[in-house]
Amino acid sequence: MTDFDFESRIVDIPDYPEPGVVFKDITPLFDDPEALRAVVDSVADHFANAGITKVVGAEARGFLVGAPVAYRLGCGFVPARKPGKLPREVFSQSYSLEYGTDEIQIHKDALTSEDRVLIVDDLVATGGTAIASAQLVEQSGAAVAGFAFILELSFLKPRHLIAEKYPQEVFSLVKVG
Amino acid sequence: MTDFDFESRIVDIPDYPEPGVVFKDITPLFDDPEALRAVVDSVADHFANAGITKVVGAEARGFLVGAPVAYRLGCGFVPARKPGKLPREVFSQSYSLEYGTDEIQIHKDALTSEDRVLIVDDLVATGGTAIASAQLVEQSGAAVAGFAFILELSFLKPRHLIAEKYPQEVFSLVKVG
Repeated sequence: MTDFDFESRIVDIPDYPEPGVVFKDITPLFDDPEALRAVVDSVADHFANAGITKVVGAEARGFLVGAPVAYRLGCGFVPARKPGKLPREVFSQSYSLEYGTDEIQIHKDALTSEDRVLIVDDLVATGGTAIASAQLVEQSGAAVAGFAFILELSFLKPRHLIAEKYPQEVFSLVKVG
Repeated sequence: MTDFDFESRIVDIPDYPEPGVVFKDITPLFDDPEALRAVVDSVADHFANAGITKVVGAEARGFLVGAPVAYRLGCGFVPARKPGKLPREVFSQSYSLEYGTDEIQIHKDALTSEDRVLIVDDLVATGGTAIASAQLVEQSGAAVAGFAFILELSFLKPRHLIAEKYPQEVFSLVKVG
């Protein structure tokens, strides 16, 4: 684990996208070479001996973290996308949002029963997207090996929700609240 | 340059998303570890001595290629996003689609006049997104150093359109048509 100060690079945007919400902007962790290297290496080093064969990341910011982590681990990267974006047969999983529901999909042939999968995203809030991603992994017959995030909004208790379904490790570079 | 057979991994999907269109599915180049490594290393090796400091990729599949290429080159990655996705001050660039127009944005502080930027995407068709990305780089005061794509739809002549504005190198792993 590097001692890079990730938290100082995350920019708080008050009242975005709406009044009362503080948006956490993680783009400065990507546009700085040193920060990008530290993010990717920290996640990859942590799971280096976990036997990961595939990384799954949800559209679109999960691609930013997941693709380089997969590259660094010598794994494949499987994009979880919104409906209508993947052209072949898919597994689908819906999940709850604050208002209403959303849905993500992966290609049916992207994972096999041999795969051990790390689920990554830039941010975990309630845990809904992460759990839906894990359910897609299970639909594929593959094993969920763990979860990795840059930023965990601890005050929303995503670990509680994830732990109800998945005992696997949840690893976050920064925890807030 | 690796001799990896990229073209054999790209899957043709006839009549997707509409009749008469053949969709090129590049996800198999990402979910296979060997293919992902070959894609990223081929692009990064090609531009290893070009003095690149930042990689720009457009939402969402440009993130898949751009983030690991930036990591491999020791550069930062700057996401070009649809309007409403970046929370701070942005430069905007609109561009023409087959029907209508679209718009992409980057954060105003993501690039400086010191930066030499590689623009990457999974696929180049008419070249509209690539040119808009280059124009965002210019709005930032940075220099466009080149363009890299996995798949170039040569029959749509994107090189002609790009060359009208940018003499910089266009590098593609696979050309079709």
